[in-house]
Amino acid sequence: MAKKRLIDPYGSELVEDYTKLIADFHLEKFDASLFPKPNRLMRRGVVYAGLGQKIISDAIKQKKPFYVLSGIMPTGDKIHFGTKMVVENIAYFQKVGAEAYILVADLEAEATRGVSLEQARKRAFDFHIPAYIALGLDPKKTTFYFQSENVEVMRATALFSKKVTLNQFLAMYGNADPGRIIGAITQVADILYPQFKRRMPGVIPVGSDQLPHILLTRDIVGRMKTQKFVPPSTVLNKYAPSLDGSMKMSKSQPESCIELPEDPKIVCKKIKRALSGGRDTLEEHKRLGADVEKDMAFELLKQHLIEDDKELENIYKKYKSGKMTSGEIKEIACEKMTEFMNTFEKKLEEVKKQVSKLKFVKA
Amino acid sequence: MAKKRLIDPYGSELVEDYTKLIADFHLEKFDASLFPKPNRLMRRGVVYAGLGQKIISDAIKQKKPFYVLSGIMPTGDKIHFGTKMVVENIAYFQKVGAEAYILVADLEAEATRGVSLEQARKRAFDFHIPAYIALGLDPKKTTFYFQSENVEVMRATALFSKKVTLNQFLAMYGNADPGRIIGAITQVADILYPQFKRRMPGVIPVGSDQLPHILLTRDIVGRMKTQKFVPPSTVLNKYAPSLDGSMKMSKSQPESCIELPEDPKIVCKKIKRALSGGRDTLEEHKRLGADVEKDMAFELLKQHLIEDDKELENIYKKYKSGKMTSGEIKEIACEKMTEFMNTFEKKLEEVKKQVSKLKFVKA
Repeated sequence: MAKKRLIDPYGSELVEDYTKLIADFHLEKFDASLFPKPNRLMRRGVVYAGLGQKIISDAIKQKKPFYVLSGIMPTGDKIHFGTKMVVENIAYFQKVGAEAYILVADLEAEATRGVSLEQARKRAFDFHIPAYIALGLDPKKTTFYFQSENVEVMRATALFSKKVTLNQFLAMYGNADPGRIIGAITQVADILYPQFKRRMPGVIPVGSDQLPHILLTRDIVGRMKTQKFVPPSTVLNKYAPSLDGSMKMSKSQPESCIELPEDPKIVCKKIKRALSGGRDTLEEHKRLGADVEKDMAFELLKQHLIEDDKELENIYKKYKSGKMTSGEIKEIACEKMTEFMNTFEKKLEEVKKQVSKLKFVKA
Repeated sequence: MAKKRLIDPYGSELVEDYTKLIADFHLEKFDASLFPKPNRLMRRGVVYAGLGQKIISDAIKQKKPFYVLSGIMPTGDKIHFGTKMVVENIAYFQKVGAEAYILVADLEAEATRGVSLEQARKRAFDFHIPAYIALGLDPKKTTFYFQSENVEVMRATALFSKKVTLNQFLAMYGNADPGRIIGAITQVADILYPQFKRRMPGVIPVGSDQLPHILLTRDIVGRMKTQKFVPPSTVLNKYAPSLDGSMKMSKSQPESCIELPEDPKIVCKKIKRALSGGRDTLEEHKRLGADVEKDMAFELLKQHLIEDDKELENIYKKYKSGKMTSGEIKEIACEKMTEFMNTFEKKLEEVKKQVSKLKFVKA
């Protein structure tokens, strides 16, 4: 591992090079052939790396118990497109047989962001949980809990904390303020929680910035002498690229960042200003074809808005050959994004009515 | 505060100079006149410093609610004489009107010493809780809890952790491994727990090595913006001196350390070999009198074995003037220690039968 930290789960540092990340952290390249009917993100290289993919693949094929788990960080009242992708991967693993666990990281939100438990609870119920369901999570097959109500998780932080040194924590996270440490070790306890009663493989889909939590958990599992957990597996998404072409959408640049929900009219304006793969003149565009790889509107179609591979390929070819203009691509992206946003909002409202019926694990 | 840490709640560093400790940490000298019927330790300078003594004194005099709290560290199956003194101070404050809270620091024991929650529970019930009661704690007027069963305490660690930085922790504790941090912040939550429902003053009697926990708690209380706690008060005991005359009894030197329980015959042998204030020859002893201040057997009489001030003064005068020999002092110490040990063992057995009836706060 390089001395320089490449990733920071609490900040906004960028991964300069995904290949370097794979090498530096001894990750596996993602292998879509291991998984039945891989989803859009898996088919299109957005899921690019993993750890322990084989054990999850085997569990799926042999119909053995395994779990998928993710946490909701209940800050704000919008979802980042990076989070949307994680939810889509959770929904995928749930469909192929995983027990799903969604926890509300209210203790972590309090320890790292100063959000009170009450605020966290309200935000989770009012928005985040409904949003996850609107994005494809099947609530009937999901176990939900709040960290602050899960006694076993809270207890286990003491146990796991004994297995890490300060220097190790500093090397992995850069920052080791007590709040950060408690937040991270609570997350380790979350990641292993489904195994407290019964050992089984589990997959934690994450964005690349969350990799340290996975590595910390696997490391702690390796140091446990009496309690032997199955090291958690993961699949990693690339960042949702910023509309200006830089690597990661960030709220600090709202003109290049789309969040959920957001007014489709504003989103369309942002798309119109997004970095395009079109050439300087129409004549040149027709002659050379588009530079599709740097076109952010096309990237939105590919990552989020077009499910059908053939439909996408068709557009790709027309754009690449210069038959379609960048304006047309932006038009399609705007149209499909508007439809997506409207559908999302509609589902969200429907789901909100049902949230009170969800079953939560309580202390 | 000096850069050099003088005290380490997890180690065995010595406080070279109690006066320096008072100056370095801005402590108050202990003022026995503030407290009604001060106990043996308070009258004889064993309790030597404090913080926030006035608010506790006022609460006692005005019969206002306040609490006394202490934790049991459930490692081992013996009690150190330093712990005995803390228990005597708890019993004192309980008698003068404090609500008493005794927590079993099972999470801290797990995080800092690797003791499992099950082991901790067994040790607490089998020995530590009965021992505290045998030493004077009134169980009927005491609230007991295990950290791992107190959801409010576990939750609050996240809240309080946000109020400390790593550097601050390093400066106070020297060691900031994640287990230590979680252990210490759980203790902060314990110290404030009686105030979660109702704000009131509280006194936490400690040995000098536990001072950092009090300072950390007071510091965190000062940083809380929305929840305003009363900063906890404390009274500090000197260390139980080693029988060889060095500052602190330590298990690593068993020949100079007495623990509870211990076979009185072995204890008497240790007392016989203890540092004495007697002179080299009997003639010299009669002429010069004893060097009482360095006599460890007399120290045991003073700190632990003689309740009656006049009886102690009588012995002091006779010894100081050379009328009594160091052998006679050791004889008295051995006799009284044997009686104390036997009484303690007897009480312990009685109390053990009743422990199952104690009421515990549970999640």
